Amino acid sequence: MLYTKYAVFLAAIPRVLALWPIPRTLTTGTDFLRLSPTFTITVNVHDPPQDLLSAVSQTKTWAWFSDAGALKTAPVLPSLTLTLQNTLPVLSISAESVKDVLNRSEGYTLSIPSDGKPAVLSANSTLGLFRGLTTFSQFWYDLNGVTYTNVGPVSIVKDVPAYPYRGFMLDTARNFFPVSDIKRTLDAMSWVKINTFHWHIVDSQSFPLVLPDFPELAQKGAYSASEVYTPADVQDIVSYAAAEIDSPGHTAVIATSHPEHIACSQASPWSTFANEPPAGQLRLASPATVNFTASLFTAAAQVLPSKHFSTGGDELNTACYVQDAQTQADLKASGHTLEQALNVFTEATHGALAKLGKTPVVWEEMVLEHNLTLSKDTVVMSVTWVWISSQNAALVAAKNFQIVHSPSDYFYLDCGAGEWIGKDPTGTPPEIAGVTPSNVAEVVHLRPPRQYNCRPSAPSSRRATTLVDRAVRRAEPRLDRVAARRTSAEIFWTGAKGPDGSALDGTEALPRLHDLRYRMVQRGVGAIALQPQWCALRPQLCNLDS
Amino acid sequence: MLYTKYAVFLAAIPRVLALWPIPRTLTTGTDFLRLSPTFTITVNVHDPPQDLLSAVSQTKTWAWFSDAGALKTAPVLPSLTLTLQNTLPVLSISAESVKDVLNRSEGYTLSIPSDGKPAVLSANSTLGLFRGLTTFSQFWYDLNGVTYTNVGPVSIVKDVPAYPYRGFMLDTARNFFPVSDIKRTLDAMSWVKINTFHWHIVDSQSFPLVLPDFPELAQKGAYSASEVYTPADVQDIVSYAAAEIDSPGHTAVIATSHPEHIACSQASPWSTFANEPPAGQLRLASPATVNFTASLFTAAAQVLPSKHFSTGGDELNTACYVQDAQTQADLKASGHTLEQALNVFTEATHGALAKLGKTPVVWEEMVLEHNLTLSKDTVVMSVTWVWISSQNAALVAAKNFQIVHSPSDYFYLDCGAGEWIGKDPTGTPPEIAGVTPSNVAEVVHLRPPRQYNCRPSAPSSRRATTLVDRAVRRAEPRLDRVAARRTSAEIFWTGAKGPDGSALDGTEALPRLHDLRYRMVQRGVGAIALQPQWCALRPQLCNLDS
Repeated sequence: MLYTKYAVFLAAIPRVLALWPIPRTLTTGTDFLRLSPTFTITVNVHDPPQDLLSAVSQTKTWAWFSDAGALKTAPVLPSLTLTLQNTLPVLSISAESVKDVLNRSEGYTLSIPSDGKPAVLSANSTLGLFRGLTTFSQFWYDLNGVTYTNVGPVSIVKDVPAYPYRGFMLDTARNFFPVSDIKRTLDAMSWVKINTFHWHIVDSQSFPLVLPDFPELAQKGAYSASEVYTPADVQDIVSYAAAEIDSPGHTAVIATSHPEHIACSQASPWSTFANEPPAGQLRLASPATVNFTASLFTAAAQVLPSKHFSTGGDELNTACYVQDAQTQADLKASGHTLEQALNVFTEATHGALAKLGKTPVVWEEMVLEHNLTLSKDTVVMSVTWVWISSQNAALVAAKNFQIVHSPSDYFYLDCGAGEWIGKDPTGTPPEIAGVTPSNVAEVVHLRPPRQYNCRPSAPSSRRATTLVDRAVRRAEPRLDRVAARRTSAEIFWTGAKGPDGSALDGTEALPRLHDLRYRMVQRGVGAIALQPQWCALRPQLCNLDS
Repeated sequence: MLYTKYAVFLAAIPRVLALWPIPRTLTTGTDFLRLSPTFTITVNVHDPPQDLLSAVSQTKTWAWFSDAGALKTAPVLPSLTLTLQNTLPVLSISAESVKDVLNRSEGYTLSIPSDGKPAVLSANSTLGLFRGLTTFSQFWYDLNGVTYTNVGPVSIVKDVPAYPYRGFMLDTARNFFPVSDIKRTLDAMSWVKINTFHWHIVDSQSFPLVLPDFPELAQKGAYSASEVYTPADVQDIVSYAAAEIDSPGHTAVIATSHPEHIACSQASPWSTFANEPPAGQLRLASPATVNFTASLFTAAAQVLPSKHFSTGGDELNTACYVQDAQTQADLKASGHTLEQALNVFTEATHGALAKLGKTPVVWEEMVLEHNLTLSKDTVVMSVTWVWISSQNAALVAAKNFQIVHSPSDYFYLDCGAGEWIGKDPTGTPPEIAGVTPSNVAEVVHLRPPRQYNCRPSAPSSRRATTLVDRAVRRAEPRLDRVAARRTSAEIFWTGAKGPDGSALDGTEALPRLHDLRYRMVQRGVGAIALQPQWCALRPQLCNLDS
């Protein structure tokens, strides 16, 4: 369908290499190579898991160009052989995907000769094979039924991610997204090797999560009876999901079913008591509320099997507690300050998660503003604005916590286009701003603290984010969240370096990203065009000096 | 489905009045009023045309809320009666819609009593009745199967548009859009009373229009054999369309089938010879090319029945002609300067259109830079940057041409988010910019020149565009083109004034626009959420001071 004019330009077919993220080691040639009409993929794996076989069969349908053309004399690639280099037992891709993030094996080695010999893909895990299959599929175009590449031979030796945690966060509380949207998003994530879905499932605005132990929360807190995630829906989604139940702030909606646990519920003006409407947060100083919250976390953690479980901790509003008579009475009764009460609250609620073997995740305020007693297992989500205070991430790291770094000025998809609050005389004009408040995204990395590095040469800082800045911050408003995910996917797989070690460059990346967009569309993801289609056919020719 | 929580807030249901554009005269009450389960619409029109009957039956399915609630005691509206106040013959809505833009009758008067008496809609044309039905449909919500409004009684006396030409332009050459997308867009336009579709059908990048007399143009110039508009497709689309075949610039693609007519085809660097790649424009000084172009316009005008036919004239590159040996030879042979040759070219090509009774439309350069001999019928598209040189529109008007004013800084949907040219070191960062170059939109007005007014109090200038600026220029990147169309729809219907004569205000407009978004989604248009759904339920409560 697309690109039928490709034939006209066959002599000058650009070597776009629609690889995204680009492998960290890569050598290619200039040979044409055809995929055999009887091309086979051999799985040299003992008792291969079903999801690996599914991934293999998908690979065979992933070529996408279709047009008339030459290529009749190019060598033919007969087969691809998959080999596992580790020992038994062989686990499924799914099982490998939910191993501790620091213990996952995602690397692979791929060789595609252009002399008619078979291609070989090897890895230490089925997950690595899956990453390699994804890369393999990105080499191929169809031209009048001939599936070909023009960059043979290909050698990728040990392509491994720069960062083990490469995440995407979706908020389903500000606005609801149906399960089908989420599953499509999970699929698209896998196409670009993003490996963690951070599901910000509830917030002050709605509570769509149906918990069998607390059915009233969704009954009264969801936007409607149909805008909920049932336990069956959750099972459908959670294999990749790190869940979040924010607390003690961002919980106003709980007042719809449990008003006794919420301070300053819908207090006015909301801006005095919360960062966004509606106001309302858990009465953290109340023993009953502590118990309630611990039980809620336990119930949620039981339906959300991910190892990581975020308990929130962001944007706690103290003015709310100052004017809440119940909280003041609770503090008086316990003799605690609010900070001490918060520590009790956190120890109790994290303790409930620890009993279930979960690793708690908190936002950076819990470490930087509140100095709580936290297990060193705890992962801290840093949302530092890189330019203003990149030291925040360093401060968290200095406290020896693992860190997920999600600088809001680069990776929040809802920033940069205005805000959704009405009648705000300051800052970006709010009215009809057209932000999509639900699509807050973190596309982040996680490393043990000692490896974390905030210097300008580190991937989280200036050089690495140049590409992201252009792709996500300024341009993302038109890309939809998929495209931004694509871009960060490359940054966090590669560490923002190309296979030759040079910094990734937007001019080089644009045609690759545009090419990926067509593959996304072909697979049912409605990513928008980045350029006229004319440029996709002639990627070099839409640069200014061409 | 949506808004089931509405019941909770029934006592305080906001009077959002999801009217867009808001009528120019409007008085409402605070009464609840139910639509009768046996509600009927009576068409008091002699021999009513089929499209009016279709519009009536659609109106009855347009209510959209659905939830449990009270409202049991509200009066019931039994019926709506449609009356035509003009004389016979009664024309169809379609026939009224393609009358000369200055002679269309779109006004209507609507009364919805809240005492159980019938509602009455009257107009001077079926098109006016259609506009009124659209407004009528926007009053109704469903609550547990009860269709109601809470602003009865309603009186709208002579709601007429401020500007007769309220347009939306779609470029189908930079990127192709299938017929189904275009038809959905036409539907959405009608929901907000936009009345002109400017179809920028071909450009330098591709030629998707299949012309029976020039089949080679699409055969060789379309992106693919399937990315074309056949004569049948065109018939499906054109009833609302004003077509454009740009010339003599923006024609590089014609070289694929008629290289003899194109100067500097794909010359390098393109930026010397064109505003965007690829370079190439008609050899306007060549008699053969003049004949070819006149024949092409004739062929296109025969399949595109709109009264207005744009012949382009923008961004003509003179450097191209200086280095083109053929053009220099043609000029020498005729003894003409390039400007004189352009005049000959324009007279001949416009003459071909005049023979078919078409009104030519040109971009402002043809009047302001080239000073051609143009019929005073000619409509000039002004794309002035309002802040920098609003006088351009005034200059065109001063030359006594009709003007369609489409300031690019407010109404071009592809501006403001970056550009799609790669490797541009200046201006907005181009790489991975994420603009959608196909969606250039004009949302414009057309008035006889003497009525045109560029002073700050005029709708095209500062006060009126405040709302547009916020809605379109800054926010549009996330709204998709539908939302921007919605916003301009209100500006150009109302003249940016509310029913009480005050300037429209973004804070007031936001909840109405957000409400409209849900109606759009309900009808299958994927407009994005402007705020959390929580705000749609409680529109006043997401303002900063609430």
